[in-house]
Amino acid sequence: MRISESIKDIRLQVKEWKKAGLSIGFVPTMGYLHEGHESLIRRAAIENDKVIVSIFVNPIQFGPKEDLDKYPRDLERDSCICKDAGTNLIFYPKKEEMYYDDFATFVDINGLTKELCGKSRPIHFRGVCTVVSKLFNIVSADKAYFGEKDAQQLAVIKRMVRDLNIDIEIIGCPIVREKDGLAKSSRNTYLSLEERNAATIINKSLKIARNKLNNGERSAKAIRDIIKENIDKEPLAKIDYIEVVDSISMEIVEEIDRNVLVAIAVYIGKTRLIDNFTFEV
Amino acid sequence: MRISESIKDIRLQVKEWKKAGLSIGFVPTMGYLHEGHESLIRRAAIENDKVIVSIFVNPIQFGPKEDLDKYPRDLERDSCICKDAGTNLIFYPKKEEMYYDDFATFVDINGLTKELCGKSRPIHFRGVCTVVSKLFNIVSADKAYFGEKDAQQLAVIKRMVRDLNIDIEIIGCPIVREKDGLAKSSRNTYLSLEERNAATIINKSLKIARNKLNNGERSAKAIRDIIKENIDKEPLAKIDYIEVVDSISMEIVEEIDRNVLVAIAVYIGKTRLIDNFTFEV
Repeated sequence: MRISESIKDIRLQVKEWKKAGLSIGFVPTMGYLHEGHESLIRRAAIENDKVIVSIFVNPIQFGPKEDLDKYPRDLERDSCICKDAGTNLIFYPKKEEMYYDDFATFVDINGLTKELCGKSRPIHFRGVCTVVSKLFNIVSADKAYFGEKDAQQLAVIKRMVRDLNIDIEIIGCPIVREKDGLAKSSRNTYLSLEERNAATIINKSLKIARNKLNNGERSAKAIRDIIKENIDKEPLAKIDYIEVVDSISMEIVEEIDRNVLVAIAVYIGKTRLIDNFTFEV
Repeated sequence: MRISESIKDIRLQVKEWKKAGLSIGFVPTMGYLHEGHESLIRRAAIENDKVIVSIFVNPIQFGPKEDLDKYPRDLERDSCICKDAGTNLIFYPKKEEMYYDDFATFVDINGLTKELCGKSRPIHFRGVCTVVSKLFNIVSADKAYFGEKDAQQLAVIKRMVRDLNIDIEIIGCPIVREKDGLAKSSRNTYLSLEERNAATIINKSLKIARNKLNNGERSAKAIRDIIKENIDKEPLAKIDYIEVVDSISMEIVEEIDRNVLVAIAVYIGKTRLIDNFTFEV
């Protein structure tokens, strides 16, 4: 496995692999990898001849008051995880390699980003779409792998790829969880022990909601209310949003008469965590 | 030479050519081709093994009061010009092939689009960047050819390609002119005979400005004034803008101490025409 900071270098390697007829799987990450990322890399390694993982904490997807500076970083640890999971090449660019001082081009999406994380993080998806476009252009992969934990991100990326005719297949992979149900996240490392225990309320409340849906509940308000009621029981938890949206368009649904995504974002102390599930009618 | 309306079809052909190691030159157009386009195609044919020309009147780059509906179209005539100039494949998509009803992704540029055509046509460059991104992704060319008549467009495309790491070389080609100096444009066909004669003032006034620059004038205001003075002499001409901008950043320059673009847009009757020249200090 090789680590490179250079776009030019990645391109040369990719061209060599393509010339040899090899397929390329790509896993874009912000590093501080956990078992969720690992599952993406392992799947990419099964489905492709070569696997490229990018590790880049993308500044333009963080708002001014967000956790860009304290976002956890550990290349050495990440490299071991990448290697074990079957990575051939890590792209680890410096900020200057990705953004010139007079950088001026942005890829933006209307419509899918009004609700959920797009509401509380207004520039977030513009930053995500822009960096993912850049990475796709640099890596020229056949397939790219994203976790379903960031469900809105996955929907946005799929739409961007369709709309801009990007020649890549986007593959969503299931959420990987701790034993007690908490979705794996690099941000879980921010949690104190007390907060870590409190955070289990997130997935517990979703499970209760899913049970209600399985038992025939079709009112989005009832689903939101039952989640809210449960999360409110936990003093360390503060709700950012609880939403039921169309699983493709990400538009708010009141009557659950189609496939929906039930998605929540909750602050545990100062740490914002997200989780979700898809319910098929 | 083949004509195809289908993205899938274009991709298959391109993959076949790439597999055979052939290079691809691309000329994106809105059709109604003139000698300017022809010069781009001929150059693409010299510099590449295969040439793809796209003909698509892109609705999203026209403002609500602009000439989308009356923009001239003539596929038969265009096909002959393409074939003669060395085109191998024409991509001629229907609107529905390029834009789904719920199309939602846009590529936009800050900074280079504040002045010149970006000022009088506020959504224009967003539409151009979006469609050109799409076309680049569909065609996967090695080189793409643009006319220097649309100087701001050329600067914007170059910046977009740099910022988004699109793996393509952008080549600007000189303006092709009528004998009396009028820059070739599909929109020239809108002109009545009287307007056609009046339109010569555009290039004449630029030539006078260039002479002043050659003689040492370095005040942008003096250059703008001499152009205005000359165009104002023509009763059928109405100035949209006269600007002197940095030839890379497209920012307004007052003291001409670096390479500049002198660019003008003038209405002749109802037809908006543009012209420009670059002056190297």
